[in-house]
Amino acid sequence: MTNAFELGQRIAEAGWVLLTGGRASGVMDAASRGAKAAGGLTIGILPTSDRAGMSAAVDIPIITDLGHARNTLNILSSQVVIACGMGAGTASEVALAIKAERSVILLNPGTESAAFFCGLSHRVMTANSPEVAIDLTRKFLDCTNPP
Amino acid sequence: MTNAFELGQRIAEAGWVLLTGGRASGVMDAASRGAKAAGGLTIGILPTSDRAGMSAAVDIPIITDLGHARNTLNILSSQVVIACGMGAGTASEVALAIKAERSVILLNPGTESAAFFCGLSHRVMTANSPEVAIDLTRKFLDCTNPP
Amino acid sequence: MTNAFELGQRIAEAGWVLLTGGRASGVMDAASRGAKAAGGLTIGILPTSDRAGMSAAVDIPIITDLGHARNTLNILSSQVVIACGMGAGTASEVALAIKAERSVILLNPGTESAAFFCGLSHRVMTANSPEVAIDLTRKFLDCTNPP
Amino acid sequence: MTNAFELGQRIAEAGWVLLTGGRASGVMDAASRGAKAAGGLTIGILPTSDRAGMSAAVDIPIITDLGHARNTLNILSSQVVIACGMGAGTASEVALAIKAERSVILLNPGTESAAFFCGLSHRVMTANSPEVAIDLTRKFLDCTNPP
Repeated sequence: MTNAFELGQRIAEAGWVLLTGGRASGVMDAASRGAKAAGGLTIGILPTSDRAGMSAAVDIPIITDLGHARNTLNILSSQVVIACGMGAGTASEVALAIKAERSVILLNPGTESAAFFCGLSHRVMTANSPEVAIDLTRKFLDCTNPP
Repeated sequence: MTNAFELGQRIAEAGWVLLTGGRASGVMDAASRGAKAAGGLTIGILPTSDRAGMSAAVDIPIITDLGHARNTLNILSSQVVIACGMGAGTASEVALAIKAERSVILLNPGTESAAFFCGLSHRVMTANSPEVAIDLTRKFLDCTNPP
Repeated sequence: MTNAFELGQRIAEAGWVLLTGGRASGVMDAASRGAKAAGGLTIGILPTSDRAGMSAAVDIPIITDLGHARNTLNILSSQVVIACGMGAGTASEVALAIKAERSVILLNPGTESAAFFCGLSHRVMTANSPEVAIDLTRKFLDCTNPP
Repeated sequence: MTNAFELGQRIAEAGWVLLTGGRASGVMDAASRGAKAAGGLTIGILPTSDRAGMSAAVDIPIITDLGHARNTLNILSSQVVIACGMGAGTASEVALAIKAERSVILLNPGTESAAFFCGLSHRVMTANSPEVAIDLTRKFLDCTNPP
Protein backbone atom coordinates (compact mmCIF):
# COMPACT_ATOMS: atom_id res chain seq x y z
CA MET A 1 0.00 0.00 0.00
CA THR A 2 2.86 2.40 0.82
CA ASN A 3 4.23 1.75 -2.65
CA ALA A 4 0.84 2.33 -4.29
CA PHE A 5 0.32 5.63 -2.46
CA GLU A 6 3.77 6.85 -3.44
CA LEU A 7 3.22 5.70 -7.02
CA GLY A 8 0.00 7.71 -7.21
CA GLN A 9 1.77 10.77 -5.85
CA ARG A 10 4.60 10.50 -8.35
CA ILE A 11 2.19 9.94 -11.25
CA ALA A 12 0.36 13.13 -10.33
CA GLU A 13 3.61 15.06 -9.86
CA ALA A 14 4.67 14.00 -13.36
CA GLY A 15 1.50 15.62 -14.68
CA TRP A 16 -0.09 12.34 -15.76
CA VAL A 17 -3.66 11.15 -15.21
CA LEU A 18 -4.07 8.09 -12.95
CA LEU A 19 -6.50 5.41 -14.10
CA THR A 20 -7.43 2.52 -11.78
CA GLY A 21 -10.22 0.01 -11.26
CA GLY A 22 -11.79 2.63 -9.01
CA ARG A 23 -12.83 0.61 -6.01
CA ALA A 24 -12.37 1.63 -2.38
CA SER A 25 -9.89 -1.10 -1.59
CA GLY A 26 -6.27 -2.07 -1.78
CA VAL A 27 -3.89 -0.74 -4.35
CA MET A 28 -6.57 1.07 -6.40
CA ASP A 29 -7.63 3.16 -3.45
CA ALA A 30 -4.10 3.82 -2.15
CA ALA A 31 -2.83 4.96 -5.54
CA SER A 32 -5.85 7.21 -6.06
CA ARG A 33 -5.39 8.78 -2.65
CA GLY A 34 -1.71 9.35 -3.40
CA ALA A 35 -2.54 11.07 -6.67
CA LYS A 36 -5.10 13.34 -4.99
CA ALA A 37 -2.62 14.20 -2.23
CA ALA A 38 -0.36 15.54 -4.98
CA GLY A 39 -3.17 17.42 -6.73
CA GLY A 40 -3.62 14.98 -9.63
CA LEU A 41 -6.63 13.86 -11.66
CA THR A 42 -7.97 10.32 -11.06
CA ILE A 43 -10.22 8.11 -13.19
CA GLY A 44 -11.87 4.93 -11.88
CA ILE A 45 -13.29 2.30 -14.25
CA LEU A 46 -15.87 0.65 -11.99
CA PRO A 47 -17.08 -2.95 -12.51
CA THR A 48 -20.43 -2.17 -10.91
CA SER A 49 -23.66 -0.51 -12.04
CA ASP A 50 -23.37 2.41 -9.62
CA ARG A 51 -20.90 4.23 -7.36
CA ALA A 52 -21.33 1.95 -4.37
CA GLY A 53 -17.86 0.79 -3.35
CA MET A 54 -16.06 3.57 -5.22
CA SER A 55 -12.88 5.05 -3.76
CA ALA A 56 -13.50 8.55 -2.41
CA ALA A 57 -10.31 9.58 -4.20
CA VAL A 58 -11.75 8.98 -7.69
CA ASP A 59 -12.57 12.20 -9.56
CA ILE A 60 -14.14 10.69 -12.68
CA PRO A 61 -16.03 7.43 -12.30
CA ILE A 62 -16.73 5.43 -15.45
CA ILE A 63 -19.58 3.13 -14.50
CA THR A 64 -19.46 0.01 -16.67
CA ASP A 65 -21.53 -2.79 -15.05
CA LEU A 66 -19.21 -5.13 -16.97
CA GLY A 67 -17.79 -7.07 -14.02
CA HIS A 68 -14.28 -8.36 -14.73
CA ALA A 69 -14.69 -7.58 -18.44
CA ARG A 70 -13.93 -3.99 -17.44
CA ASN A 71 -10.32 -5.04 -16.91
CA THR A 72 -9.88 -4.83 -20.68
CA LEU A 73 -10.92 -1.17 -20.61
CA ASN A 74 -8.46 -0.38 -17.83
CA ILE A 75 -5.70 -1.61 -20.09
CA LEU A 76 -6.83 -0.17 -23.42
CA SER A 77 -7.37 3.25 -21.89
CA SER A 78 -3.86 3.34 -20.38
CA GLN A 79 -0.62 4.25 -22.11
CA VAL A 80 1.57 2.47 -19.58
CA VAL A 81 0.42 -0.20 -17.11
CA ILE A 82 2.05 -0.51 -13.66
CA ALA A 83 1.21 -3.61 -11.64
CA CYS A 84 1.62 -3.14 -7.93
CA GLY A 85 1.09 -6.46 -6.16
CA MET A 86 -0.19 -9.62 -7.83
CA GLY A 87 -3.42 -11.61 -7.74
CA ALA A 88 -5.75 -13.15 -10.28
CA GLY A 89 -7.34 -9.83 -11.29
CA THR A 90 -4.01 -8.10 -11.71
CA ALA A 91 -2.63 -11.10 -13.60
CA SER A 92 -5.51 -10.88 -16.08
CA GLU A 93 -4.75 -7.20 -16.61
CA VAL A 94 -1.03 -7.78 -17.16
CA ALA A 95 -1.85 -10.54 -19.68
CA LEU A 96 -4.39 -8.33 -21.47
CA ALA A 97 -1.84 -5.50 -21.54
CA ILE A 98 0.68 -7.78 -23.25
CA LYS A 99 -2.02 -8.88 -25.72
CA ALA A 100 -2.93 -5.25 -26.43
CA GLU A 101 0.76 -4.35 -26.84
CA ARG A 102 0.90 -1.97 -23.92
CA SER A 103 4.12 -1.46 -21.99
CA VAL A 104 3.96 -3.07 -18.55
CA ILE A 105 5.97 -2.47 -15.41
CA LEU A 106 5.85 -4.94 -12.53
CA LEU A 107 6.66 -3.18 -9.27
CA ASN A 108 8.52 -5.49 -6.87
CA PRO A 109 7.14 -8.68 -8.43
CA GLY A 110 7.59 -12.12 -6.93
CA THR A 111 10.07 -14.42 -8.63
CA GLU A 112 7.36 -16.49 -10.28
CA SER A 113 5.33 -13.63 -11.72
CA ALA A 114 8.47 -11.95 -13.07
CA ALA A 115 9.60 -15.21 -14.69
CA PHE A 116 6.20 -15.90 -16.20
CA PHE A 117 5.33 -12.47 -17.58
CA CYS A 118 8.83 -11.45 -18.69
CA GLY A 119 8.90 -14.80 -20.52
CA LEU A 120 5.63 -13.94 -22.30
CA SER A 121 6.75 -10.57 -23.65
CA HIS A 122 9.77 -8.31 -23.89
CA ARG A 123 7.42 -5.36 -23.20
CA VAL A 124 7.29 -6.36 -19.53
CA MET A 125 9.89 -4.79 -17.25
CA THR A 126 10.38 -4.86 -13.51
CA ALA A 127 11.07 -2.00 -11.07
CA ASN A 128 12.16 -2.24 -7.46
CA SER A 129 10.76 1.13 -6.36
CA PRO A 130 8.06 3.63 -7.37
CA GLU A 131 10.83 6.01 -8.43
CA VAL A 132 12.26 3.47 -10.88
CA ALA A 133 8.74 2.68 -12.15
CA ILE A 134 8.21 6.37 -12.92
CA ASP A 135 11.54 6.61 -14.73
CA LEU A 136 10.63 3.60 -16.88
CA THR A 137 7.18 5.06 -17.56
CA ARG A 138 8.77 8.30 -18.78
CA LYS A 139 10.99 6.30 -21.14
CA PHE A 140 8.05 4.32 -22.51
CA LEU A 141 6.03 7.51 -23.08
CA ASP A 142 8.98 9.14 -24.87
CA CYS A 143 9.19 6.41 -27.45
CA THR A 144 5.57 5.47 -28.16
CA ASN A 145 2.55 7.28 -29.53
CA PRO A 146 -0.64 7.09 -27.50
CA PRO A 147 -2.85 4.13 -28.46
CA MET B 1 -24.85 20.87 -34.88
CA THR B 2 -25.38 24.48 -33.72
CA ASN B 3 -27.52 23.13 -30.91
CA ALA B 4 -24.91 20.54 -29.93
CA PHE B 5 -22.12 23.12 -29.84
CA GLU B 6 -24.20 25.47 -27.69
CA LEU B 7 -25.21 22.58 -25.44
CA GLY B 8 -21.55 21.71 -24.88
CA GLN B 9 -20.77 25.34 -24.05
CA ARG B 10 -23.58 25.60 -21.55
CA ILE B 11 -22.67 22.28 -19.92
CA ALA B 12 -19.13 23.54 -19.39
CA GLU B 13 -20.36 26.93 -18.14
CA ALA B 14 -22.53 25.12 -15.57
CA GLY B 15 -19.36 23.47 -14.26
CA TRP B 16 -20.36 19.98 -15.36
CA VAL B 17 -18.25 17.37 -17.15
CA LEU B 18 -19.36 16.47 -20.70
CA LEU B 19 -19.36 12.79 -21.61
CA THR B 20 -19.95 11.69 -25.22
CA GLY B 21 -19.23 8.76 -27.52
CA GLY B 22 -15.97 10.52 -28.33
CA ARG B 23 -15.83 10.23 -32.10
CA ALA B 24 -14.86 13.02 -34.50
CA SER B 25 -18.25 13.31 -36.06
CA GLY B 26 -21.66 14.87 -35.70
CA VAL B 27 -23.17 15.78 -32.40
CA MET B 28 -20.43 14.15 -30.29
CA ASP B 29 -17.75 16.27 -31.87
CA ALA B 30 -19.79 19.50 -31.90
CA ALA B 31 -20.75 19.20 -28.24
CA SER B 32 -17.16 18.42 -27.23
CA ARG B 33 -15.87 21.42 -29.17
CA GLY B 34 -18.49 23.62 -27.52
CA ALA B 35 -17.45 22.42 -24.07
CA LYS B 36 -13.78 23.09 -24.81
CA ALA B 37 -14.61 26.55 -26.16
CA ALA B 38 -16.07 27.31 -22.72
CA GLY B 39 -13.11 25.81 -20.85
CA GLY B 40 -14.83 22.57 -19.80
CA LEU B 41 -13.61 19.01 -19.30
CA THR B 42 -14.63 16.37 -21.89
CA ILE B 43 -14.68 12.58 -21.71
CA GLY B 44 -15.10 10.35 -24.77
CA ILE B 45 -16.09 6.68 -24.44
CA LEU B 46 -14.68 5.29 -27.69
CA PRO B 47 -16.06 2.15 -29.38
CA THR B 48 -12.70 1.40 -30.98
CA SER B 49 -9.44 -0.18 -29.82
CA ASP B 50 -7.38 2.99 -30.26
CA ARG B 51 -7.71 6.76 -30.70
CA ALA B 52 -8.18 6.69 -34.45
CA GLY B 53 -11.35 8.65 -35.21
CA MET B 54 -11.39 10.43 -31.85
CA SER B 55 -12.65 14.02 -31.65
CA ALA B 56 -9.76 16.44 -31.10
CA ALA B 57 -11.94 18.07 -28.43
CA VAL B 58 -11.88 15.02 -26.13
CA ASP B 59 -9.67 15.47 -23.06
CA ILE B 60 -10.01 12.00 -21.58
CA PRO B 61 -10.49 9.08 -23.97
CA ILE B 62 -11.79 5.83 -22.52
CA ILE B 63 -10.82 3.20 -25.08
CA THR B 64 -13.24 0.30 -24.85
CA ASP B 65 -13.04 -1.79 -28.07
CA LEU B 66 -16.64 -2.77 -27.24
CA GLY B 67 -18.33 -1.51 -30.42
CA HIS B 68 -21.95 -0.52 -29.79
CA ALA B 69 -21.89 -2.23 -26.40
CA ARG B 70 -20.08 0.89 -25.21
CA ASN B 71 -23.39 2.76 -25.47
CA THR B 72 -24.34 1.19 -22.14
CA LEU B 73 -21.28 2.77 -20.52
CA ASN B 74 -22.14 6.20 -21.91
CA ILE B 75 -25.47 5.99 -20.13
CA LEU B 76 -24.38 4.41 -16.85
CA SER B 77 -21.56 6.93 -16.43
CA SER B 78 -23.90 9.89 -16.95
CA GLN B 79 -26.16 11.52 -14.38
CA VAL B 80 -28.43 13.12 -16.98
CA VAL B 81 -28.68 12.10 -20.65
CA ILE B 82 -29.43 14.70 -23.34
CA ALA B 83 -30.28 13.38 -26.81
CA CYS B 84 -29.59 15.88 -29.57
CA GLY B 85 -30.84 14.49 -32.87
CA MET B 86 -32.12 10.93 -33.37
CA GLY B 87 -30.84 7.83 -35.13
CA ALA B 88 -30.51 4.14 -34.28
CA GLY B 89 -27.46 4.64 -32.05
CA THR B 90 -29.04 7.50 -30.11
CA ALA B 91 -32.32 5.56 -29.84
CA SER B 92 -30.46 2.65 -28.25
CA GLU B 93 -28.91 5.03 -25.72
CA VAL B 94 -32.21 6.67 -24.83
CA ALA B 95 -33.78 3.22 -24.35
CA LEU B 96 -30.84 2.04 -22.21
CA ALA B 97 -31.08 5.27 -20.18
CA ILE B 98 -34.74 4.54 -19.44
CA LYS B 99 -33.83 0.96 -18.50
CA ALA B 100 -31.07 2.21 -16.20
CA GLU B 101 -33.41 4.78 -14.65
CA ARG B 102 -31.48 7.81 -15.81
CA SER B 103 -33.26 11.09 -16.50
CA VAL B 104 -33.43 11.80 -20.23
CA ILE B 105 -33.98 15.03 -22.14
CA LEU B 106 -34.82 14.96 -25.84
CA LEU B 107 -33.72 18.22 -27.48
CA ASN B 108 -36.08 19.23 -30.31
CA PRO B 109 -37.29 15.68 -30.94
CA GLY B 110 -39.44 14.68 -33.90
CA THR B 111 -43.09 13.93 -33.18
CA GLU B 112 -42.59 10.18 -33.43
CA SER B 113 -39.57 9.90 -31.14
CA ALA B 114 -41.22 12.12 -28.53
CA ALA B 115 -44.41 10.03 -28.65
CA PHE B 116 -42.52 6.75 -28.43
CA PHE B 117 -40.02 7.54 -25.68
CA CYS B 118 -42.30 9.72 -23.53
CA GLY B 119 -44.77 6.81 -23.74
CA LEU B 120 -42.09 4.41 -22.46
CA SER B 121 -41.17 6.39 -19.35
CA HIS B 122 -42.13 9.44 -17.37
CA ARG B 123 -38.41 10.13 -16.90
CA VAL B 124 -38.18 11.38 -20.47
CA MET B 125 -38.76 15.09 -21.04
CA THR B 126 -38.43 17.30 -24.08
CA ALA B 127 -36.75 20.67 -24.49
CA ASN B 128 -36.99 23.10 -27.38
CA SER B 129 -33.65 24.81 -26.84
CA PRO B 130 -30.26 24.12 -25.24
CA GLU B 131 -31.13 26.68 -22.57
CA VAL B 132 -34.26 24.76 -21.57
CA ALA B 133 -32.30 21.49 -21.62
CA ILE B 134 -29.79 22.97 -19.18
CA ASP B 135 -32.55 24.21 -16.87
CA LEU B 136 -34.12 20.75 -16.85
CA THR B 137 -30.73 19.15 -16.20
CA ARG B 138 -30.21 21.41 -13.19
CA LYS B 139 -33.60 20.36 -11.82
CA PHE B 140 -32.83 16.67 -12.31
CA LEU B 141 -29.45 17.05 -10.56
CA ASP B 142 -31.05 18.89 -7.65
CA CYS B 143 -33.40 16.04 -6.88
CA THR B 144 -31.33 12.91 -7.50
CA ASN B 145 -28.21 11.44 -6.03
CA PRO B 146 -25.47 10.42 -8.44
CA PRO B 147 -25.78 6.82 -9.62
CA MET C 1 -47.07 -14.61 -23.77
CA THR C 2 -49.28 -16.81 -25.96
CA ASN C 3 -47.69 -15.18 -28.98
CA ALA C 4 -44.19 -15.69 -27.62
CA PHE C 5 -44.80 -19.38 -26.89
CA GLU C 6 -46.20 -19.94 -30.38
CA LEU C 7 -43.33 -18.02 -31.91
CA GLY C 8 -40.83 -20.27 -30.13
CA GLN C 9 -42.67 -23.35 -31.35
CA ARG C 10 -42.70 -22.18 -34.95
CA ILE C 11 -39.01 -21.18 -34.82
CA ALA C 12 -38.13 -24.68 -33.65
CA GLU C 13 -40.40 -26.29 -36.24
CA ALA C 14 -38.65 -24.30 -38.96
CA GLY C 15 -35.39 -25.89 -37.83
CA TRP C 16 -33.90 -22.65 -36.50
CA VAL C 17 -32.09 -22.04 -33.23
CA LEU C 18 -33.84 -19.69 -30.77
CA LEU C 19 -31.68 -17.09 -29.02
CA THR C 20 -33.11 -14.98 -26.19
CA GLY C 21 -31.93 -13.00 -23.19
CA GLY C 22 -32.28 -16.25 -21.23
CA ARG C 23 -34.07 -15.14 -18.11
CA ALA C 24 -36.95 -16.95 -16.45
CA SER C 25 -39.48 -14.23 -17.13
CA GLY C 26 -41.84 -12.86 -19.70
CA VAL C 27 -41.34 -13.25 -23.42
CA MET C 28 -37.85 -14.80 -23.12
CA ASP C 29 -39.11 -17.64 -21.01
CA ALA C 30 -42.33 -18.20 -22.98
CA ALA C 31 -40.53 -18.33 -26.33
CA SER C 32 -37.88 -20.70 -24.95
CA ARG C 33 -40.56 -23.01 -23.55
CA GLY C 34 -42.36 -22.97 -26.89
CA ALA C 35 -39.18 -23.91 -28.73
CA LYS C 36 -38.49 -26.79 -26.32
CA ALA C 37 -42.08 -28.02 -26.67
CA ALA C 38 -41.37 -28.38 -30.38
CA GLY C 39 -38.02 -30.08 -29.83
CA GLY C 40 -35.83 -27.07 -30.71
CA LEU C 41 -32.46 -25.82 -29.45
CA THR C 42 -32.41 -22.72 -27.23
CA ILE C 43 -29.60 -20.32 -26.33
CA GLY C 44 -29.83 -17.77 -23.53
CA ILE C 45 -27.42 -14.82 -23.31
CA LEU C 46 -27.59 -14.06 -19.60
CA PRO C 47 -26.83 -10.60 -18.14
CA THR C 48 -25.74 -12.12 -14.84
CA SER C 49 -22.57 -13.80 -13.55
CA ASP C 50 -24.23 -17.18 -12.96
CA ARG C 51 -27.33 -19.22 -13.83
CA ALA C 52 -29.51 -17.78 -11.10
CA GLY C 53 -32.71 -16.53 -12.74
CA MET C 54 -32.18 -18.54 -15.93
CA SER C 55 -35.19 -19.97 -17.76
CA ALA C 56 -35.41 -23.74 -17.30
CA ALA C 57 -36.05 -23.94 -21.05
CA VAL C 58 -32.58 -22.68 -22.00
CA ASP C 59 -30.27 -25.41 -23.34
CA ILE C 60 -27.11 -23.37 -23.75
CA PRO C 61 -26.51 -20.53 -21.32
CA ILE C 62 -23.93 -17.93 -22.26
CA ILE C 63 -23.02 -16.25 -18.99
CA THR C 64 -21.83 -12.71 -19.68
CA ASP C 65 -21.99 -10.66 -16.45
CA LEU C 66 -22.34 -7.66 -18.79
CA GLY C 67 -25.71 -6.37 -17.55
CA HIS C 68 -27.63 -4.55 -20.28
CA ALA C 69 -24.52 -4.45 -22.47
CA ARG C 70 -25.36 -8.06 -23.29
CA ASN C 71 -28.25 -6.77 -25.41
CA THR C 72 -25.71 -6.01 -28.13
CA LEU C 73 -24.67 -9.68 -28.18
CA ASN C 74 -28.27 -10.84 -28.50
CA ILE C 75 -28.56 -8.79 -31.66
CA LEU C 76 -25.17 -9.48 -33.23
CA SER C 77 -25.57 -13.23 -32.72
CA SER C 78 -28.99 -13.28 -34.41
CA GLN C 79 -29.73 -13.36 -38.11
CA VAL C 80 -33.26 -12.02 -37.73
CA VAL C 81 -34.63 -10.18 -34.69
CA ILE C 82 -38.29 -10.55 -33.67
CA ALA C 83 -39.60 -8.14 -31.03
CA CYS C 84 -42.58 -9.46 -29.15
CA GLY C 85 -43.92 -6.76 -26.84
CA MET C 86 -42.17 -3.45 -26.15
CA GLY C 87 -40.34 -1.93 -23.21
CA ALA C 88 -37.09 -0.07 -22.68
CA GLY C 89 -34.91 -3.22 -22.93
CA THR C 90 -36.60 -4.40 -26.12
CA ALA C 91 -36.46 -0.89 -27.57
CA SER C 92 -32.69 -0.83 -27.02
CA GLU C 93 -32.38 -4.15 -28.84
CA VAL C 94 -34.49 -3.03 -31.80
CA ALA C 95 -32.39 0.13 -32.08
CA LEU C 96 -29.13 -1.84 -31.85
CA ALA C 97 -30.45 -4.26 -34.48
CA ILE C 98 -31.08 -1.36 -36.86
CA LYS C 99 -27.60 0.01 -36.11
CA ALA C 100 -26.07 -3.43 -36.78
CA GLU C 101 -28.08 -3.79 -40.00
CA ARG C 102 -30.10 -6.77 -38.86
CA SER C 103 -33.59 -7.38 -40.19
CA VAL C 104 -36.20 -6.67 -37.51
CA ILE C 105 -39.81 -7.80 -37.19
CA LEU C 106 -42.15 -6.12 -34.71
CA LEU C 107 -44.91 -8.53 -33.71
CA ASN C 108 -48.19 -6.67 -33.03
CA PRO C 109 -46.48 -3.38 -32.21
CA GLY C 110 -48.28 -0.39 -30.76
CA THR C 111 -48.90 2.54 -33.11
CA GLU C 112 -46.11 4.61 -31.59
CA SER C 113 -43.38 1.98 -31.70
CA ALA C 114 -44.28 1.05 -35.27
CA ALA C 115 -44.18 4.71 -36.34
CA PHE C 116 -40.89 5.36 -34.59
CA PHE C 117 -38.90 2.29 -35.63
CA CYS C 118 -40.26 1.98 -39.17
CA GLY C 119 -39.33 5.65 -39.55
CA LEU C 120 -35.76 4.90 -38.43
CA SER C 121 -35.10 2.11 -40.93
CA HIS C 122 -36.65 0.30 -43.88
CA ARG C 123 -35.30 -2.95 -42.42
CA VAL C 124 -38.04 -2.90 -39.79
CA MET C 125 -41.28 -4.68 -40.69
CA THR C 126 -44.40 -5.47 -38.71
CA ALA C 127 -46.34 -8.73 -38.41
CA ASN C 128 -49.78 -9.25 -36.90
CA SER C 129 -49.30 -12.94 -36.00
CA PRO C 130 -46.48 -15.40 -35.23
CA GLU C 131 -47.26 -17.12 -38.54
CA VAL C 132 -46.66 -13.93 -40.51
CA ALA C 133 -43.48 -13.25 -38.49
CA ILE C 134 -42.14 -16.67 -39.46
CA ASP C 135 -42.95 -16.09 -43.14
CA LEU C 136 -41.11 -12.77 -43.05
CA THR C 137 -38.17 -14.40 -41.27
CA ARG C 138 -37.94 -17.02 -44.00
CA LYS C 139 -37.86 -14.30 -46.65
CA PHE C 140 -35.13 -12.39 -44.81
CA LEU C 141 -33.03 -15.55 -44.45
CA ASP C 142 -33.44 -16.34 -48.14
CA CYS C 143 -31.97 -13.05 -49.26
CA THR C 144 -29.17 -12.41 -46.75
CA ASN C 145 -25.97 -14.13 -45.79
CA PRO C 146 -25.39 -14.80 -42.14
CA PRO C 147 -23.56 -11.96 -40.40
CA MET D 1 -2.43 -29.01 -32.08
CA THR D 2 -2.51 -32.81 -31.82
CA ASN D 3 -3.35 -32.42 -28.17
CA ALA D 4 -6.09 -29.87 -28.88
CA PHE D 5 -7.71 -32.07 -31.52
CA GLU D 6 -7.67 -35.08 -29.20
CA LEU D 7 -9.00 -32.96 -26.34
CA GLY D 8 -11.93 -31.85 -28.51
CA GLN D 9 -12.66 -35.46 -29.45
CA ARG D 10 -12.64 -36.63 -25.87
CA ILE D 11 -14.83 -33.72 -24.71
CA ALA D 12 -17.42 -34.67 -27.34
CA GLU D 13 -17.16 -38.38 -26.47
CA ALA D 14 -17.84 -37.53 -22.83
CA GLY D 15 -21.09 -35.89 -23.95
CA TRP D 16 -19.98 -32.36 -23.04
CA VAL D 17 -20.35 -29.18 -25.10
CA LEU D 18 -17.07 -27.58 -26.26
CA LEU D 19 -16.79 -23.80 -25.93
CA THR D 20 -13.83 -21.94 -27.47
CA GLY D 21 -12.91 -18.48 -28.72
CA GLY D 22 -14.27 -19.62 -32.09
CA ARG D 23 -11.60 -18.40 -34.45
CA ALA D 24 -10.18 -20.41 -37.37
CA SER D 25 -6.71 -20.67 -35.90
CA GLY D 26 -4.58 -22.63 -33.51
CA VAL D 27 -5.92 -24.49 -30.54
CA MET D 28 -9.49 -23.14 -30.88
CA ASP D 29 -9.84 -24.50 -34.37
CA ALA D 30 -8.11 -27.82 -33.66
CA ALA D 31 -10.24 -28.53 -30.59
CA SER D 32 -13.44 -27.62 -32.45
CA ARG D 33 -12.51 -29.90 -35.35
CA GLY D 34 -11.77 -32.72 -32.91
CA ALA D 35 -15.15 -32.30 -31.24
CA LYS D 36 -16.95 -32.33 -34.58
CA ALA D 37 -15.03 -35.44 -35.66
CA ALA D 38 -16.54 -37.17 -32.62
CA GLY D 39 -20.04 -35.83 -33.29
CA GLY D 40 -20.05 -33.16 -30.56
CA LEU D 41 -21.62 -29.71 -30.28
CA THR D 42 -19.31 -26.67 -30.50
CA ILE D 43 -19.83 -23.06 -29.44
CA GLY D 44 -17.52 -20.23 -30.49
CA ILE D 45 -17.51 -16.89 -28.66
CA LEU D 46 -16.19 -14.60 -31.38
CA PRO D 47 -14.38 -11.31 -30.63
CA THR D 48 -15.48 -9.81 -33.95
CA SER D 49 -18.69 -8.22 -35.28
CA ASP D 50 -19.36 -10.94 -37.85
CA ARG D 51 -18.39 -14.50 -38.81
CA ALA D 52 -15.28 -13.55 -40.75
CA GLY D 53 -12.43 -15.63 -39.35
CA MET D 54 -14.69 -18.17 -37.66
CA SER D 55 -13.62 -21.81 -37.48
CA ALA D 56 -15.67 -23.95 -39.87
CA ALA D 57 -16.04 -26.42 -37.00
CA VAL D 58 -18.11 -24.04 -34.85
CA ASP D 59 -21.81 -24.96 -34.70
CA ILE D 60 -23.08 -22.01 -32.68
CA PRO D 61 -21.32 -18.69 -33.11
CA ILE D 62 -21.89 -16.05 -30.45
CA ILE D 63 -20.91 -12.78 -32.10
CA THR D 64 -19.80 -10.31 -29.47
CA ASP D 65 -17.77 -7.49 -31.10
CA LEU D 66 -16.15 -7.15 -27.67
CA GLY D 67 -12.54 -7.77 -28.69
CA HIS D 68 -10.49 -9.28 -25.87
CA ALA D 69 -13.25 -8.46 -23.38
CA ARG D 70 -14.98 -11.56 -24.74
CA ASN D 71 -12.39 -13.65 -22.90
CA THR D 72 -14.41 -13.06 -19.73
CA LEU D 73 -17.47 -14.64 -21.39
CA ASN D 74 -15.47 -17.70 -22.44
CA ILE D 75 -14.64 -18.30 -18.81
CA LEU D 76 -17.97 -17.46 -17.19
CA SER D 77 -19.85 -19.68 -19.65
CA SER D 78 -17.59 -22.67 -18.95
CA GLN D 79 -17.83 -25.10 -16.07
CA VAL D 80 -14.22 -26.27 -16.39
CA VAL D 81 -11.43 -24.42 -18.22
CA ILE D 82 -8.64 -26.36 -19.99
CA ALA D 83 -5.66 -24.33 -21.20
CA CYS D 84 -3.79 -25.97 -24.04
CA GLY D 85 -0.68 -23.96 -24.84
CA MET D 86 0.17 -20.58 -23.31
CA GLY D 87 0.27 -17.01 -24.61
CA ALA D 88 -0.98 -13.64 -23.42
CA GLY D 89 -4.61 -14.32 -24.44
CA THR D 90 -4.68 -17.71 -22.74
CA ALA D 91 -2.94 -16.29 -19.67
CA SER D 92 -5.68 -13.66 -19.34
CA GLU D 93 -8.31 -16.40 -19.50
CA VAL D 94 -6.60 -18.55 -16.88
CA ALA D 95 -6.32 -15.53 -14.58
CA LEU D 96 -9.98 -14.59 -15.15
CA ALA D 97 -10.97 -18.21 -14.49
CA ILE D 98 -9.20 -18.11 -11.14
CA LYS D 99 -10.88 -14.77 -10.35
CA ALA D 100 -14.29 -16.24 -11.29
CA GLU D 101 -13.61 -19.36 -9.21
CA ARG D 102 -13.67 -21.78 -12.10
CA SER D 103 -11.62 -24.98 -12.01
CA VAL D 104 -8.64 -24.76 -14.36
CA ILE D 105 -6.51 -27.47 -15.94
CA LEU D 106 -3.20 -26.60 -17.59
CA LEU D 107 -2.36 -29.22 -20.23
CA ASN D 108 1.41 -29.76 -20.48
CA PRO D 109 2.29 -26.32 -19.11
CA GLY D 110 5.78 -24.87 -19.12
CA THR D 111 7.57 -24.73 -15.77
CA GLU D 112 7.00 -21.01 -15.39
CA SER D 113 3.27 -20.95 -16.13
CA ALA D 114 2.68 -23.92 -13.83
CA ALA D 115 4.65 -22.24 -11.02
CA PHE D 116 2.88 -18.92 -11.48
CA PHE D 117 -0.73 -20.07 -11.81
CA CYS D 118 -0.58 -22.93 -9.29
CA GLY D 119 0.88 -20.36 -6.89
CA LEU D 120 -2.11 -18.06 -7.49
CA SER D 121 -4.80 -20.64 -6.74
CA HIS D 122 -5.31 -24.17 -5.53
CA ARG D 123 -8.05 -24.54 -8.18
CA VAL D 124 -5.37 -24.83 -10.88
CA MET D 125 -4.17 -28.33 -11.71
CA THR D 126 -1.87 -29.67 -14.38
CA ALA D 127 -2.31 -32.65 -16.73
CA ASN D 128 0.30 -34.28 -18.92
CA SER D 129 -2.15 -35.72 -21.51
CA PRO D 130 -5.65 -35.06 -22.86
CA GLU D 131 -6.77 -38.28 -21.15
CA VAL D 132 -5.66 -37.02 -17.75
CA ALA D 133 -7.27 -33.63 -18.43
CA ILE D 134 -10.59 -35.37 -19.14
CA ASP D 135 -10.34 -37.43 -15.94
CA LEU D 136 -9.71 -34.28 -13.92
CA THR D 137 -12.61 -32.51 -15.65
CA ARG D 138 -14.94 -35.37 -14.71
CA LYS D 139 -13.83 -35.07 -11.09
CA PHE D 140 -14.41 -31.31 -11.06
CA LEU D 141 -17.87 -31.73 -12.58
CA ASP D 142 -18.78 -34.37 -10.02
CA CYS D 143 -18.13 -32.08 -7.09
CA THR D 144 -19.38 -28.70 -8.25
CA ASN D 145 -22.70 -27.28 -9.30
CA PRO D 146 -22.82 -25.42 -12.58
CA PRO D 147 -22.15 -21.67 -12.24
